Amino acid sequence: MKVLFAQNREFEKELINIVKKRSPGELTGVEKRVREIIEKVREKGDEALIELTMELDGVFLNAEELEVRDEEIEKAYSSVEKEFLEALNKAYENILEFHEKQKQESWFYMKEGSLLGQRILPLESVGIYVPGGKAAYPSTVLMNAIPAKVAGVERIYMTTPPKGNKEINPYILAAAKICGINKIFKIGGAQAIAALSYGTETIPKVDKIVGPGNIYVACAKKQVYGEVDVDLIAGPSEIVVIADETADERYVAYDLLSQAEHDENAMAILITDSQRLAQEVLRCINDCIETKEKEDPLNNNISTAKKSLENYGLILLTQNLMEAVKISNLIAPEHLEIIAKNGDELLKEVKNAGTVFLGEFSPEPIGDYIAGTNHVLPTNQTSRFFSPLGVYDFMKRINVVKYSLESLRLYAGHAVKIAEREGLYLHANSLKVRINDVQG
Amino acid sequence: MKVLFAQNREFEKELINIVKKRSPGELTGVEKRVREIIEKVREKGDEALIELTMELDGVFLNAEELEVRDEEIEKAYSSVEKEFLEALNKAYENILEFHEKQKQESWFYMKEGSLLGQRILPLESVGIYVPGGKAAYPSTVLMNAIPAKVAGVERIYMTTPPKGNKEINPYILAAAKICGINKIFKIGGAQAIAALSYGTETIPKVDKIVGPGNIYVACAKKQVYGEVDVDLIAGPSEIVVIADETADERYVAYDLLSQAEHDENAMAILITDSQRLAQEVLRCINDCIETKEKEDPLNNNISTAKKSLENYGLILLTQNLMEAVKISNLIAPEHLEIIAKNGDELLKEVKNAGTVFLGEFSPEPIGDYIAGTNHVLPTNQTSRFFSPLGVYDFMKRINVVKYSLESLRLYAGHAVKIAEREGLYLHANSLKVRINDVQG
Repeated sequence: MKVLFAQNREFEKELINIVKKRSPGELTGVEKRVREIIEKVREKGDEALIELTMELDGVFLNAEELEVRDEEIEKAYSSVEKEFLEALNKAYENILEFHEKQKQESWFYMKEGSLLGQRILPLESVGIYVPGGKAAYPSTVLMNAIPAKVAGVERIYMTTPPKGNKEINPYILAAAKICGINKIFKIGGAQAIAALSYGTETIPKVDKIVGPGNIYVACAKKQVYGEVDVDLIAGPSEIVVIADETADERYVAYDLLSQAEHDENAMAILITDSQRLAQEVLRCINDCIETKEKEDPLNNNISTAKKSLENYGLILLTQNLMEAVKISNLIAPEHLEIIAKNGDELLKEVKNAGTVFLGEFSPEPIGDYIAGTNHVLPTNQTSRFFSPLGVYDFMKRINVVKYSLESLRLYAGHAVKIAEREGLYLHANSLKVRINDVQG
Repeated sequence: MKVLFAQNREFEKELINIVKKRSPGELTGVEKRVREIIEKVREKGDEALIELTMELDGVFLNAEELEVRDEEIEKAYSSVEKEFLEALNKAYENILEFHEKQKQESWFYMKEGSLLGQRILPLESVGIYVPGGKAAYPSTVLMNAIPAKVAGVERIYMTTPPKGNKEINPYILAAAKICGINKIFKIGGAQAIAALSYGTETIPKVDKIVGPGNIYVACAKKQVYGEVDVDLIAGPSEIVVIADETADERYVAYDLLSQAEHDENAMAILITDSQRLAQEVLRCINDCIETKEKEDPLNNNISTAKKSLENYGLILLTQNLMEAVKISNLIAPEHLEIIAKNGDELLKEVKNAGTVFLGEFSPEPIGDYIAGTNHVLPTNQTSRFFSPLGVYDFMKRINVVKYSLESLRLYAGHAVKIAEREGLYLHANSLKVRINDVQG
């Protein structure tokens, strides 16, 4: 973990270079292969899915096995420990409550007899991609499905790669059941994205695809964008902790470590004005790593966290915390913790972040699972312009104009002026025929 | 203009094939060239812009000339006829009023002592691309700038290619002045998009780029997406008119024609249950074309409209208008006019459209210029999931969690359960250290 003193413009450039290095970069390596997969699924439908699942996942499914049967879901659900279901149900409630505040209603107003406004409607259908293997997170099912449900999406599908025994992770199926997912399919990779984009005999074409995935999935989402909508493409996870001397060094240390365990490319940065805190946090991180390594020398999470902190771990020392917030705004982190006396004040200066966690009782993992906020957040500096996943991502708007005779008389002449100046004479014509009719 | 009877599923497939044919398709032809342009601008900044403007626009600008000077703007503004300014100002007012209804406020709620919510903030900077030549539309400046202004974006820049005499279309400059654009640059094409994405000595890096452009601009926007946000990539324009026997055939005919004048690939479709109306509209279109051709045999608008109607003009006869709306939902048109007795009822069934124009006094061009609704709308079936440009496109959200001791006690245990099940032990750790501290 590097320690830097934040003191000049050169420092800012260096910092941004470090942040940028983590960019997912070009997908060119897999682009061609993904294009072929998509073409194959478009042309051959289910047949292609069966072939590709055999070839890429080593699993042979017949057409009837592409969709998960109700019995499989029930079996999985009853195999899962009660305490886990209880936790997931509590998470469901809290996430639902938070996202219900995001629901927007159609609005209209009258002006000179005209009706103007926007209808706000749910998308009709959505596909959620859930990765297999280690990254199969039941919490991700909740985070993607609940905003779609709150939006009013009628058909929510899920697709996830099957394991060798043709089965799906039971925790994923339990989460899907809690969310009331309409159909679940045993397809992974680019072929799943292709199927949801164009439809096959078994898999319905959807309006939008959401959910994380490996490079093939990310590349496929990029290629089908426009045919369907897709969510933001997530980069490696990241956290900035802004803390002053009042912060508990263990909290800061453990929160940095928890982000670092995700991925060797995860980024964990502490920005503080307290040299003492910086030292204590460093010590605490090292102690924690040492203890855990002794307890279990093969602990993957610790070795990943160690590498991540070596690669991208940073402690920045600033003159004061206002400066810290400015630096954080440059980094535009996915997660931002603020543990400081004047946290509320600092919050007001935050311009770019996915979620801000304020105060000592708000560790980042509370937002991953249970607080109610969404954990699908913009990474890689995109919180400059992107938002956390929300109900608004599953709704669309339609402008409505019902113009009155009065409005036409008042304004159509102006519109003719602009149309003619833009050289769109037939536009002007469509206005003029009505103006003539209503005159006199 | 083809006439089809809408009566079976085969018909729907045929229709969608026609609609799909108009897709902008792959940008592969220009991708490589655009990538080179972007790289050059990233590396060499202003110098690259000067070289590329010479090479591609045939205009030599020195570094001081890249930005439009205030005197140029004033000169342009005072050269424009008063009536046009009046029309533009009226448009500005109406567009402002409509978009002010879209503004959203941050929201928060308390739950067991915890504060949860979302800060909703404007983007910090936006770049508007305005094409040169025939497609330089002052109305487009208004439609892109006003939502950004209402959102509260502090820095709004515009970029547009210069003419041979180094000047910019005065109507565009007048529109920019009315909108209070902060800076205007004389750069066009992919190089303008690159400059706004990465910044040069003269052009500032922005958070989002909006505005229409040719294939180079569209391709560049696709390539920089992620580095900055970009708006939807517009395809050729389209209209569906749903009308019954009460509709005035001239209105329907002229509205179809007005859409067709945009582009040979524009699409104009009438769906009606009245054979009489279909015949009258056809007759009226032919009369109009004939008359205008006689008046001015070199009229480009008419020849474009004629070709567009030959390519994509359609009249669909349905049993009733509910069926017509269903077909329109499949087409998901950018513009939908409904001129029918039970228009209000039909509106409720509309699921996919950019703007709906209801009733005989709502010709589509009223929405292009003066009604207040935005004319930047999803094309090419993307109204299934995209929305008209609006204030929401210039705002971002930040989740906020300030967790209380009470909430931590109530919920952190559940979060630990899920974290451990997902194999994220250091996440669990960050929660457990706090749980231990607050127990007893």
